[in-house]
Amino acid sequence: MDTEEFRRRGREMVDYVADYLESIEKRPVFPDVEPGYLHSLIPTEAPVDPETYEDIIKDVERVIMPGVTHWQSPYFFAYFPASSSLPSILADMLCGALGCIGFSWAASPACTELETVMLDWLGKMLQLPECFLAGTHGHGGGVIQGTASEATLMSLLAARCKTIRSVQASNPQLPEGEIFSKLVAYTSEQAHSSVERAALIGGVMIRKVPTDDTYAVRKDILKKMMEEDKAAGLIPFYFCATLGTTPSCAFDHITELGPICNEENIWMHVDAAYAGSAFICPEFRHLLNGIEFANSFDFNPHKWLLVNFDCSTMWVKDRADLIGAFKVDPLYLKHENQESGLVTDYRHWQIPLGRRFRSLKMWFVFRLYGVKGLQSHIRNHVALAKEFESLVRADKRFEVCAEVIMGLVCFRLKGPNELSENLLKKINQSREIHLVPCQLSGRSPVIDRQTDRQAHRRQSLSHPKVYYS
Amino acid sequence: MDTEEFRRRGREMVDYVADYLESIEKRPVFPDVEPGYLHSLIPTEAPVDPETYEDIIKDVERVIMPGVTHWQSPYFFAYFPASSSLPSILADMLCGALGCIGFSWAASPACTELETVMLDWLGKMLQLPECFLAGTHGHGGGVIQGTASEATLMSLLAARCKTIRSVQASNPQLPEGEIFSKLVAYTSEQAHSSVERAALIGGVMIRKVPTDDTYAVRKDILKKMMEEDKAAGLIPFYFCATLGTTPSCAFDHITELGPICNEENIWMHVDAAYAGSAFICPEFRHLLNGIEFANSFDFNPHKWLLVNFDCSTMWVKDRADLIGAFKVDPLYLKHENQESGLVTDYRHWQIPLGRRFRSLKMWFVFRLYGVKGLQSHIRNHVALAKEFESLVRADKRFEVCAEVIMGLVCFRLKGPNELSENLLKKINQSREIHLVPCQLSGRSPVIDRQTDRQAHRRQSLSHPKVYYS
Repeated sequence: MDTEEFRRRGREMVDYVADYLESIEKRPVFPDVEPGYLHSLIPTEAPVDPETYEDIIKDVERVIMPGVTHWQSPYFFAYFPASSSLPSILADMLCGALGCIGFSWAASPACTELETVMLDWLGKMLQLPECFLAGTHGHGGGVIQGTASEATLMSLLAARCKTIRSVQASNPQLPEGEIFSKLVAYTSEQAHSSVERAALIGGVMIRKVPTDDTYAVRKDILKKMMEEDKAAGLIPFYFCATLGTTPSCAFDHITELGPICNEENIWMHVDAAYAGSAFICPEFRHLLNGIEFANSFDFNPHKWLLVNFDCSTMWVKDRADLIGAFKVDPLYLKHENQESGLVTDYRHWQIPLGRRFRSLKMWFVFRLYGVKGLQSHIRNHVALAKEFESLVRADKRFEVCAEVIMGLVCFRLKGPNELSENLLKKINQSREIHLVPCQLSGRSPVIDRQTDRQAHRRQSLSHPKVYYS
Repeated sequence: MDTEEFRRRGREMVDYVADYLESIEKRPVFPDVEPGYLHSLIPTEAPVDPETYEDIIKDVERVIMPGVTHWQSPYFFAYFPASSSLPSILADMLCGALGCIGFSWAASPACTELETVMLDWLGKMLQLPECFLAGTHGHGGGVIQGTASEATLMSLLAARCKTIRSVQASNPQLPEGEIFSKLVAYTSEQAHSSVERAALIGGVMIRKVPTDDTYAVRKDILKKMMEEDKAAGLIPFYFCATLGTTPSCAFDHITELGPICNEENIWMHVDAAYAGSAFICPEFRHLLNGIEFANSFDFNPHKWLLVNFDCSTMWVKDRADLIGAFKVDPLYLKHENQESGLVTDYRHWQIPLGRRFRSLKMWFVFRLYGVKGLQSHIRNHVALAKEFESLVRADKRFEVCAEVIMGLVCFRLKGPNELSENLLKKINQSREIHLVPCQLSGRSPVIDRQTDRQAHRRQSLSHPKVYYS
């Protein structure tokens, strides 16, 4: 394919994308295929000789589309929203063309610097405390991770390293292995599974903290667990708070949890993967109060802020904590400006070495929507959730299982679990809308995200979904 | 932006991308900017009201391009190749439009199934032993990781888990922490920095194995180190072999190293990040001999096989080893077909939870080039390296520092290191071509990747680079 053909095929692809998003409502949201469906549709080996572009593009409808779960469909309410947008798709095209791998400042200065500034822009939108911003002289700063899971892992690893060093400093005779085996992390029993997984990867114990009747972690219980562990000779070192839990969008009380962590020298990471986007609205910002006590904070603009996956934004108060934990600096990655203190080498901030120019997506989206446009996107979704909540509450057969604060509505049929389980099964088998279940306190409510088809039509956006599991 | 505007802007972006790649040779390959250059070019906060698309696109040339290191330029010979291609860019557009997050089979069956089949296609191109393929009933199979660093980390973590379980099985009284603190990983002193980093993350010791005079790890030295460690009460558990090292493209002798690892129950991971692509050519396939002894294998089609970053392909012999080490299964991610044994839930195979539909890129590229087209891409680059090598050898001022096997040519000025260091500085300051340095046995050769501008013109591709550091 030469660039002339690319111009033609590119235009066709743009139209295909536009057609797909315009008519996505006509496709069944959840595919009607059995495991292994694709094997019989394509050859078992790559072709020896080139095929034509027509062959391939025909196969997109024949092979791919029948097996796609349409996350951008207005009938998709499962898992969490993955709110892509048209400007974001354009920015990603540019990213693909540049094809630069920005692991260090020198590897592509624009890639690094735009990211730093975009994280500052977004941090300001959230009214993050100054100490989390990079500015031009700050000790903090932000980075784009691929997913919130990676942000959690990075923070846990940084905390692990910091704690081991500090314990060793006061007990130089203690072997590292022994300290390691005493480390304990904490998170809500309602926290996302990736926190447990981060502890598994990091090789440390993790305790799940019971929650109150709003599914939130409170001060006393965390304090008690930590005291007990310390009395048993263990070393509490990390607490992952959640703002907007996966099952019910509950908010841990970080204003009271933060001070405890600070007193005890425990790293507090705040995971607001879904809810974080809403903090750009003044009326939701109070839910982020207490962030000043955190060491690190992360949320996913790719969930609810119109930036295509993958874009998980993470801030740290002290970048040295993150960098110090991972710095391995071979000669072939060194560059002249490295030691000037002025540059950021993002490879030290993340698990992978390579990285794409993802801040372009943020730049396009923030500028084309403006802060106001993004705020009204959030507000629209929350209003739809409230509307759906009132419909559920008006129907005596149903109950709402958790406070509706943002875009998530947890509801169930009154009575035994089987009723809700059967309802969910029927709904998903109909393939008209798609939902996933969730468990709260042993009950199994259906989690819904409101049918916002009208919003879709009004906005002509490709991602009008609101809610997450 | 509605879909009508998207059609227009999308076409413009396609043309911008085509123009950029057609005229990339006119841009200085390495930017002439100082750290912090971008701050003065854009506001310190996001706009409150939306801006126009024209505003943004104008700023691409004003703000972004002056700070871009042009990885797709024919004058770029630094780090490693990031060989994107036009079909791959088109596939990524489709991926962006679908916006599906394929963490489980149900989350998008096509995303999972095409990936499994593409990894089988590629595995067959490489003539990987059957046990690494998924087929329809296999125990092995492949997965797309973001980077080789992640593949290395995943393999190390899986090996760690497997070893701890097996040691515990035969010594039930041994606490996990004690086993953990005795684990030792091994890799070449020439291995990529990400191996050391994986050990750091995994919390295990790592030993760097000295190499022979071709910079390759040999059997006797590895065996000796392991014996010494075992005698000291430690537990060797993991060896990361490299096929095509970062500094000089050396090949560890896995035909002799593999049997040792197998005898000692040590996980052998083979990292062929760069060189792996060449194994699709029969004349290079012998360098992969011994892969039958490996537990896992990874290389980066995004380096040298025309698939845009990120696409690192990893195979395991026994998928249960990988999955078993990480499985955390909350209700909201469960789905009906999960326990059927027929489906793959790729979230257990990787660090992040979310994942894009990256196999589309492989599908487009494999079909549009065909195996023959991909082979000739590799052969062309190797021929250019050979040509450059002969030019260097013909000039008495220079010496070639390592055997030229693939696309990498390591050369230096004869005499003290300062000469080469100064030459490199001059070359990079001229900004006409861009190189990075490398160290082999205390000498500091310049690493070059041959000027293949003609190849660029001939192929009308955007990524004619050949060599890596």
